[in-house]
Amino acid sequence: MSRIKVGIIGCGYWGPNLIRNFVEIPTSDVLAVADLREERLSHIKTCYPQVMVTEDYRDLFTLGLDAAVVATPPATHFSLARDCLRRGLHVLVEKPLTLNSRRAEELIELAEAQGLILMAGHTFEYNSAVRALKRIIDSGELGQIYYVDAVRVNLGLFQPDLNVLWDLAPHDISILLYILGHAPIAASAQGLACVFDGIHDIVYLNLVFPGDVLAHLHVSWLDPCKVRRITVVGSKKMVVYDDVEPLEKIKIYDKGVEAPPYTNTFGEFQCSYRYGDVVIPNIRFVEPLRLECQHFLECVANYTKPQSCGRVGLKVVKVLEMAERSLQNGGGQETIFFEDGYVHERVAA
Amino acid sequence: MSRIKVGIIGCGYWGPNLIRNFVEIPTSDVLAVADLREERLSHIKTCYPQVMVTEDYRDLFTLGLDAAVVATPPATHFSLARDCLRRGLHVLVEKPLTLNSRRAEELIELAEAQGLILMAGHTFEYNSAVRALKRIIDSGELGQIYYVDAVRVNLGLFQPDLNVLWDLAPHDISILLYILGHAPIAASAQGLACVFDGIHDIVYLNLVFPGDVLAHLHVSWLDPCKVRRITVVGSKKMVVYDDVEPLEKIKIYDKGVEAPPYTNTFGEFQCSYRYGDVVIPNIRFVEPLRLECQHFLECVANYTKPQSCGRVGLKVVKVLEMAERSLQNGGGQETIFFEDGYVHERVAA
Amino acid sequence: MSRIKVGIIGCGYWGPNLIRNFVEIPTSDVLAVADLREERLSHIKTCYPQVMVTEDYRDLFTLGLDAAVVATPPATHFSLARDCLRRGLHVLVEKPLTLNSRRAEELIELAEAQGLILMAGHTFEYNSAVRALKRIIDSGELGQIYYVDAVRVNLGLFQPDLNVLWDLAPHDISILLYILGHAPIAASAQGLACVFDGIHDIVYLNLVFPGDVLAHLHVSWLDPCKVRRITVVGSKKMVVYDDVEPLEKIKIYDKGVEAPPYTNTFGEFQCSYRYGDVVIPNIRFVEPLRLECQHFLECVANYTKPQSCGRVGLKVVKVLEMAERSLQNGGGQETIFFEDGYVHERVAA
Amino acid sequence: MSRIKVGIIGCGYWGPNLIRNFVEIPTSDVLAVADLREERLSHIKTCYPQVMVTEDYRDLFTLGLDAAVVATPPATHFSLARDCLRRGLHVLVEKPLTLNSRRAEELIELAEAQGLILMAGHTFEYNSAVRALKRIIDSGELGQIYYVDAVRVNLGLFQPDLNVLWDLAPHDISILLYILGHAPIAASAQGLACVFDGIHDIVYLNLVFPGDVLAHLHVSWLDPCKVRRITVVGSKKMVVYDDVEPLEKIKIYDKGVEAPPYTNTFGEFQCSYRYGDVVIPNIRFVEPLRLECQHFLECVANYTKPQSCGRVGLKVVKVLEMAERSLQNGGGQETIFFEDGYVHERVAA
Repeated sequence: MSRIKVGIIGCGYWGPNLIRNFVEIPTSDVLAVADLREERLSHIKTCYPQVMVTEDYRDLFTLGLDAAVVATPPATHFSLARDCLRRGLHVLVEKPLTLNSRRAEELIELAEAQGLILMAGHTFEYNSAVRALKRIIDSGELGQIYYVDAVRVNLGLFQPDLNVLWDLAPHDISILLYILGHAPIAASAQGLACVFDGIHDIVYLNLVFPGDVLAHLHVSWLDPCKVRRITVVGSKKMVVYDDVEPLEKIKIYDKGVEAPPYTNTFGEFQCSYRYGDVVIPNIRFVEPLRLECQHFLECVANYTKPQSCGRVGLKVVKVLEMAERSLQNGGGQETIFFEDGYVHERVAA
Repeated sequence: MSRIKVGIIGCGYWGPNLIRNFVEIPTSDVLAVADLREERLSHIKTCYPQVMVTEDYRDLFTLGLDAAVVATPPATHFSLARDCLRRGLHVLVEKPLTLNSRRAEELIELAEAQGLILMAGHTFEYNSAVRALKRIIDSGELGQIYYVDAVRVNLGLFQPDLNVLWDLAPHDISILLYILGHAPIAASAQGLACVFDGIHDIVYLNLVFPGDVLAHLHVSWLDPCKVRRITVVGSKKMVVYDDVEPLEKIKIYDKGVEAPPYTNTFGEFQCSYRYGDVVIPNIRFVEPLRLECQHFLECVANYTKPQSCGRVGLKVVKVLEMAERSLQNGGGQETIFFEDGYVHERVAA
Repeated sequence: MSRIKVGIIGCGYWGPNLIRNFVEIPTSDVLAVADLREERLSHIKTCYPQVMVTEDYRDLFTLGLDAAVVATPPATHFSLARDCLRRGLHVLVEKPLTLNSRRAEELIELAEAQGLILMAGHTFEYNSAVRALKRIIDSGELGQIYYVDAVRVNLGLFQPDLNVLWDLAPHDISILLYILGHAPIAASAQGLACVFDGIHDIVYLNLVFPGDVLAHLHVSWLDPCKVRRITVVGSKKMVVYDDVEPLEKIKIYDKGVEAPPYTNTFGEFQCSYRYGDVVIPNIRFVEPLRLECQHFLECVANYTKPQSCGRVGLKVVKVLEMAERSLQNGGGQETIFFEDGYVHERVAA
Repeated sequence: MSRIKVGIIGCGYWGPNLIRNFVEIPTSDVLAVADLREERLSHIKTCYPQVMVTEDYRDLFTLGLDAAVVATPPATHFSLARDCLRRGLHVLVEKPLTLNSRRAEELIELAEAQGLILMAGHTFEYNSAVRALKRIIDSGELGQIYYVDAVRVNLGLFQPDLNVLWDLAPHDISILLYILGHAPIAASAQGLACVFDGIHDIVYLNLVFPGDVLAHLHVSWLDPCKVRRITVVGSKKMVVYDDVEPLEKIKIYDKGVEAPPYTNTFGEFQCSYRYGDVVIPNIRFVEPLRLECQHFLECVANYTKPQSCGRVGLKVVKVLEMAERSLQNGGGQETIFFEDGYVHERVAA
């Protein structure tokens, strides 16, 4: 097969990683890169002289591309992705897919109508450690899942058009949907806008999943330490996924508590604790973005639905909207009903 | 001055530490220890043959004691402390002071009417690292305090008559009141009762303090890792107090973000970040319980009000009640009005 | 059986821990404590009013004791232990047994002639993590043992009559003898006396064990960080024992390298690496000193040979002497021939 | 100025990093890459289609290059660098410069005779944390330097023509020469060849620097944990440089011990300890290899002597030879006399 011809829109913070990967993967050719900033284009030209660069993304439509990658600020995702789809290009859009679920639906419909691949750049779904975490949960080894605690904090870069919820929580929400296999049915969020009026920089978010599984997210741009940790607590075992650890990213704790079947009196109140070994499984690490890009190219080549397809991207946006509503109403619980009539639905449906 | 004669009620998990401290401090004499369990008394007798032991705490009232220490399960604090006060003894009660604020008030009134010292065993108020944290905050070095994040989780011992909120959160609430100098004015809490029906074993608690300072507490008996960490984020610097660290308990991060005074356009949107040194102050560590016991003895000897007096103990109980109400009503925000007519009051008032 | 009557000589840094343990163990009675410093005795009297205290250790010989514990500065171990043995007491001596192997032999002979128990206080032999480490090695799980790396450093307390080799290395040497089951046959040591002329405060020690197993020890009183770590590298797996870790003291790494059976050319030079899981076995921790004291009491009661008997204590002293000779001769290798005619001998022989 | 035209020989493990840096730096042009392995060249061609690739490095001499970079296995450094110098190219050679000091001298003479830049790729000399460490030492803040302890271990890649001393120790030796400003005058080394006969995979190396400063290096390919840590202990303060830490690479401990001016009796034996704050200076991190490549290009452009010039590379080789001699003679101490008649000399001389 001939190489898939790719154009990339946006080469700020994340774009260069996408460019590097599509350049290095032998099944794709990066033909062009667009960005509004001349100095960014000049940097790209230095690194990849073979790539055409332009300040006008519409120049990409004249090159006979197969696919476009949108890695611009989130507020521009919708219109850029729409234009690319209209021009008949398969599209990979950075997370969050859009800032509005109606528009995400519009992209999905457009892609389906045109027979094009639409994929959301949920990098963590392609992370070896997250995949190992999903395998562990699916195996039943943890028993019944009680709750998930996720922390993603550091001294972060503020963005003018986005609060910390929309900036950082898409990672954790996409991970939760992926590992739990369900979308949440309710959310409540509280936070603070410390530095800029109206732009939340700290958010605590509770999500309720089917089966009374609780997930609690803590996202912050105002923390002195970089923490990226997800704890999954089950009735039999517990797992910690610490993305900051260079090697020991997943730790499985054979720890648990069991209530006795019944207790007649307070005097008989006893639980049995289990303190067993800790296992750190060996995980062969591949750059997640490499796997994501390869997956996108395979979906384009074979015309198959991506794991993080447009509908999964839409679900993440809907959860963000629900959380944002709660944040705006002072922390009251909000619920969600997915349009297909079910309270929740399988993530990959 | 002659030694203060002390009796201790309860020698389960924590009681032996109190006994050891009062035995080792030269200004006190431990005359007797009471507990319902014969094997606990026998253990105490082995370690301290000079101490009288009894299964009936009322035997302590015949020994001419000056003071009593109540280290029994929380549900019994009120009636035991009341009996001791009625018998004219100064009383140190383990945290939480009571399980009900009405009863805490009753104890305070009783102590005041009798001219007796009533102190709550808020050990962390006597912890060198917490005191260093308070000094740092009070110095203004951190700038305006934005928020406090507190995590106190591990695989914990379940108790039949108490949920994790009443078991673990008293520590963090007493620390918050101490370091911020104020009581919170609103609370909302969410949690789960995973192992035993009706006994919450995971709770997330938001507290709003005067001046829009937010504190978020995460307490859990169901976490594979032991974490005891408090992060205080200010406009100028940030501090992490990690009680699990053997030596480097306090880290001061010279990190911050500043918004520009005004921004005309999005293009001008810029914040200034500061990434400076981290300082780990040397803290001379003394066993907090030793300092607490010494403080109690000094208050008894000099007839002065303890730092963690009955009224501070009462405030902690009121905050717990407010949090419990929110937990029971599904996470809705609850507020508090202190009886002296102020929305909030100085902690030590 | 009636309780074993114990007297303790020396209550400085370590002595109080011995006193506490013998007081708390139900099968022993601490009758008396001797120390030259009145303020130490006064402290002991405060904590244990039932114990007789004296500045003259010979007073202990009038009390009908069964056993004595010597926890004084090492230079006095020999004469105090000898006096106790001569008076017919079983003796537990803190490490190192003596500062001179001739004198250690004299103690052994005296004990054997009198039919008395002589035990060296090698606490780490009674440490649950060290015992787990020995079980792992003995199981063969690690394959052939290649080498052991031991680090024991911190900002340490200088002693006037002892260098860091004699102060800290006894711990590691006793651990090595215990886990490897052999004494070393050669040693070379280099170090520095930075703060006090003639008192080494940093020593690097190489020990060669039978079968070409190398052990390298790094002991220092001049390091900013407290490190207590032993790495055992085998042909199949590797283990790290980190005594500073509160819970995860032992980590078993399923890592290894294998050379191919033969290689014809450089081009064929290939090894196979194995990167497997890491396992942190759950170890039920009991205070090592408690187990050591209980073991001593059992040996006295049943008249059995202690695990860390006088002869094991002697071997540690002989290794220290060999290392000291190398240190004094500038790092040249020294060897040892044990008196029973073998180059090396089983540790517990 | 026109861009410096660079060719790179060797694109195995490290070469691609050099290629990427020279491609991205605007003042250089990577014209060609040579390697014996076709699949490596094919990979480079995918990433950098503009670069000419060849299996015969002599093809590079036809392109009008200004400079060559040698990143091949160490055994080939000499002949490749010699060829490049003979063809009039400035040369950057990966560490170690050569495997033999005579040949390093030959390269130096050749470069000087031709007026060409010869630079050794001592990356750590261009590491921001190492530079901060040197500034701290040079400032005198640490007081008199007592000793340096360096550990560089992990499960490493075996090489057929090199032992671990020549593979890993060049890093630490170049760091030591750089931060101490002197070459060592004596060495003793001990080690083991566990996996392959004759190829040491664990080495412990003692280096004596002028002024009785001791440095101890531990390098190993057989350790389960990746450690890269250098501890510098001075009479006033101590520093730890931990290269595995993502952010807190340098920690300055205000800790020290002071001996009293004189002591008459043992009773007066007292040292004063200082336990002060720990400071973690903020270090702005730039990729060290980027700084190294930029420095090489600047030296070529301005015709100035590189910091890690050929003579510094030679000194590292001489120290390695001295250590290797000791390793081969069983750990006996070896000394070095530099050819200019001094026992030691300033590193940058």
